[in-house]
Amino acid sequence: MQAVQSKITARHYLPGARLPSVRAQAKAMQVSVSTVVEAYERLVAEGCIQSKPGAGFYACGHVAPLNLTQIGPKVEREIDPLWVSRQSLEADDTMLKPGCGWLPPEWLYQTGIRRALRTVAREDSLDLTDYATPLGHPAFRQYLQRRLASNDIDVNAEQIMLTESGTQAIDLIGRLFLEPGDTVLVDDPCYFNFHALLKAHRAKVIGIPYTPNGPDVVAFEAALAEHTPRLYITNSGIHNPTGASLSPMVAHKVLMLAEAADLVIVEDDIFADLEMDTTPRLAAFDGLNRVLEIGSFSKTVSASVRCGYIAGRADWIEKLVDLKIATSFGGSRLGAEIVLQTLTNSGYRKHMERLRLWLAKQRQTTKEKLAKLGITPWLEPKAGMFLWCQLPKGVEATKLAQICVKQGLILAPGNAFSLSQSAHDFLRFNVAQCTDDKVFTILASALNQCLEATPDSHLTK
Amino acid sequence: MQAVQSKITARHYLPGARLPSVRAQAKAMQVSVSTVVEAYERLVAEGCIQSKPGAGFYACGHVAPLNLTQIGPKVEREIDPLWVSRQSLEADDTMLKPGCGWLPPEWLYQTGIRRALRTVAREDSLDLTDYATPLGHPAFRQYLQRRLASNDIDVNAEQIMLTESGTQAIDLIGRLFLEPGDTVLVDDPCYFNFHALLKAHRAKVIGIPYTPNGPDVVAFEAALAEHTPRLYITNSGIHNPTGASLSPMVAHKVLMLAEAADLVIVEDDIFADLEMDTTPRLAAFDGLNRVLEIGSFSKTVSASVRCGYIAGRADWIEKLVDLKIATSFGGSRLGAEIVLQTLTNSGYRKHMERLRLWLAKQRQTTKEKLAKLGITPWLEPKAGMFLWCQLPKGVEATKLAQICVKQGLILAPGNAFSLSQSAHDFLRFNVAQCTDDKVFTILASALNQCLEATPDSHLTK
Repeated sequence: MQAVQSKITARHYLPGARLPSVRAQAKAMQVSVSTVVEAYERLVAEGCIQSKPGAGFYACGHVAPLNLTQIGPKVEREIDPLWVSRQSLEADDTMLKPGCGWLPPEWLYQTGIRRALRTVAREDSLDLTDYATPLGHPAFRQYLQRRLASNDIDVNAEQIMLTESGTQAIDLIGRLFLEPGDTVLVDDPCYFNFHALLKAHRAKVIGIPYTPNGPDVVAFEAALAEHTPRLYITNSGIHNPTGASLSPMVAHKVLMLAEAADLVIVEDDIFADLEMDTTPRLAAFDGLNRVLEIGSFSKTVSASVRCGYIAGRADWIEKLVDLKIATSFGGSRLGAEIVLQTLTNSGYRKHMERLRLWLAKQRQTTKEKLAKLGITPWLEPKAGMFLWCQLPKGVEATKLAQICVKQGLILAPGNAFSLSQSAHDFLRFNVAQCTDDKVFTILASALNQCLEATPDSHLTK
Repeated sequence: MQAVQSKITARHYLPGARLPSVRAQAKAMQVSVSTVVEAYERLVAEGCIQSKPGAGFYACGHVAPLNLTQIGPKVEREIDPLWVSRQSLEADDTMLKPGCGWLPPEWLYQTGIRRALRTVAREDSLDLTDYATPLGHPAFRQYLQRRLASNDIDVNAEQIMLTESGTQAIDLIGRLFLEPGDTVLVDDPCYFNFHALLKAHRAKVIGIPYTPNGPDVVAFEAALAEHTPRLYITNSGIHNPTGASLSPMVAHKVLMLAEAADLVIVEDDIFADLEMDTTPRLAAFDGLNRVLEIGSFSKTVSASVRCGYIAGRADWIEKLVDLKIATSFGGSRLGAEIVLQTLTNSGYRKHMERLRLWLAKQRQTTKEKLAKLGITPWLEPKAGMFLWCQLPKGVEATKLAQICVKQGLILAPGNAFSLSQSAHDFLRFNVAQCTDDKVFTILASALNQCLEATPDSHLTK
C-alpha cells in the first residue's frame, strides 16, 4: 500500500493512470498475488485508487499528503472560555496539560474498555447496527436507576434519558426551557463551557459567587429577586473548578428559594465516581421535582466514547426525548453498550478505589510543589482532580498562560471560569496532569518572567 | 448472579441484609469460591449489592425489576413528524417496519463492524479514552476529502468537521445561521425530521414542491422573492422520500437563484454510497462556496455508532467547531475510528456492490407486490431503499398507518414528509424492510378496512 501511495504522491503514477496489473505488481515487488490484491482493495476502499471491473486499477486524481499533522493550538487566539477547550483539545501528545479537565489515559480503566470492545464485537447484530431507542439503552437506564438510588435519588428508569454527553444534556435542557434573552444563573467560578453553551442559547447569564459550601445564598436570593432567572446550573458533588462540596444547609436554602421563585435547577454530577464519601445532592433533597440531575462518564470511563444522561420529571423527559430525536436522531447505542460493559465489569470498582487514592496522593504532591512557587489552593478539596489556586501577588493568569503555551504547557486561567472576571490571579490545576516535573520547571520560569515585568506595570499605573 | 438477584427481587434477602459469606454461598451452590467472588463483584458493579470491606456483602435497598420491557410505541399519539421517528425507534424486534428509514442489520456489513471493534480494542490508549480533536479524527477527514473528490467536490481536510450524525450537522448549521423567526426552504415532500429540527430552531419553514428532477424552480424563485429565506435544506443524490435525483439543469438554476438571493444551501448526502452512478451535487457545481455538504454513515455502515460530517467554507467551519464544542464538547473519537475502520476495510466496497444489487432487486419485487394492492410508485428511483407510493383512491395514509400499527406494522404516512399536507394519500416504503410477506398481508387487510369505510365517509361529506 505504501509503495503505491508513494508513487502516486510523487506523481510517478499520474492521476487517471492505469496501475501495473496485480500479477505484474506481485512479480515486481516479489510478493504474492493475494498480497497485492488485498493492498489494491484497501487502496480502493480508502479512495486512493479506483477499480474498473475488467479493466484493472487506476490512480485517483486527488491524493492527500500522507502524513497530515494535526493542526496545532492557535496560540494567538483571545483567551475566552472556548480558548481553554480548544487549547486542550487541539494539543498533541507532546504538550503538558495541567489546564485540561480530564484524566490521562493511564489513569483510566483501559483494560475494562478493551474488554468491553471485544465483548461488544460478539454481540447481537441490532446492537451493532440499529438506532438506539428514544430514551436510550434500557439496561443502562436500569443501571443508572440503581446508581442514583445509592445517592438517595429515587427515580424510575423511564425518567432517565441517555444523551451523548453531559454537555448535550445541558444543551437539550436549555432548548426546552430557554427563550433567547432568558436569564440563567451559574456559579462564579464555574465550568467554563457553561459560558460558551449559554452564549449559544443567547441567554443572559448571572454569576453567583461560590463559597466553600456552595453558592452564596444571599447573592442567590438577590439574583432571583432582581433577574427572575429560568435556570440555575451547578455541580454539587465536586465543584468545578473549586473542588468545593455543597453543604446540606446551603442545599436546603437553595431549594427553598428555587421553590419560591419557580426556578429549574440543573445539577451536573459528572464527578460522582471520584468522591470518597457521598455529599448532598440537590436532586436527592428535592426528589427530582424541579432539579434535573445530569451526568456523564467522560471523566471516569472514557471521553472517547460519548455517553451522558438526564434524570428528571417524566413530563420533562418526554419533551426532552422529542428534542433529542429532532436535533440528533438519538445517541449511540454501541457507545452506551461499551460504557455499560466497562462500568459493570467487576474490575471497575477496584480501579476506581485505586484512582481515588492516586488522586488524593497527587493532590497532596501537587499542592506541595505549587507551594514552593507561591501558588496556593483556595481550599483543600475532599476529592477529585482539581486544585483551584491563587497566583503570587502581581501575576496575571492569562499572561502566564500565554507564556507557558509557547513552552508546551497548557494552563487554565481563572477568568475563563469567572463571569465577573474576578479570578484574574487564579488557575485551575488538574493534579493528574501534573506528574511530570517539567510542569513546575516551566511554571517557575514563566512566573519569574511575569514577576520581573510586574514592577514596570506598577510604574505605569 | 441470577440466583442472588432473584432472592433480592423475591425479598428473600431484604434490603440491607447481609448476604451469605463467599464460602457459605460457594458450598450451598456447589460452585467454586472464585465463581462466587466474581458474581458478587459483578453484582456490586451493577449496584445490586454492596461490599463493606471486612464485613461482607449486603443487599441494596433499591432493585429494579429484572426484565424491564422496553416501552412500546405510543399508538395513540398524533401523527406528526416525530410520530414516525418514535414509532420506528421504539418498535421492538417483532414489529415490521416498512416505514422506517434504515436497513435491517442483515443488510449491513456486520463482519466489517465486528472486525473494526476487535481492531480498535488493540489500539493506542488515547483513541480509547481521550476527547476527539475539535475538527475530529484527522485520518477520517482525509478519507472524506478523497471521497468527496470522487464526487468532484474539492475540499481540504481542514474544511471538514466531523459531527455525531447528519442531524447534528444540520442542527449546528441552523445554530450558526438562524435567528428565531428566520425562514428556511425545504423540499415538499422532504425527510420528516427536517420539520421537527426546524421547529426546534423556531424557524419559519416554506416547502418547495419537489419534481422528479429536483425542486420546482419556478416555486423556488417565487419563494426567494417572497420570503428572503436564510437556508435551503435538500438531498441531491437520492432524494428522501421520493428517490428522485437532481438534474444538472435544475442544479445550475438553483445555484444561480441562490447566488442572487445570498441563500446558504445545506446538501444532505447521506445516501451517497447507495447510488449506482454519481448524480450531480450542488456542492460540486458551487465549489463549496455557499453550499455546505453534509453526510453520515447511519444508512450504510451503522446507525448504532454515530458519525457524520460537514464540509464547507473554512470560515464557516471555524465557527461551527466553536458551536460544536460549546454544545457537545466534541464527538466520539472511538466511534469515528470504528466507522473509518469499517469503511476502509477492503470488504466494504464489495459489500456495497452487493447491497446496491439487492436493493435494485428488492425495489422491483416490492413494486410488483404493491401494484397488486393498487399502490403505485410516484417514480422509479435509480437507486436507494425508498419507494414513494400513492395509495388507491379514497385511502388516507394516516388512517391506514393507525390500523397497521395495531397489527405490528409501522408505516410512514406521506403527510409526515409534506409541509403543505398534500401527501395524504402517499406512503414511503423502505424496500429492505419489505422482505416479509406479512407486510403485504397486513397492508391488504388494512386497505380493505379503509376502502369499506370510504363510501360512508363520502356520505358524511
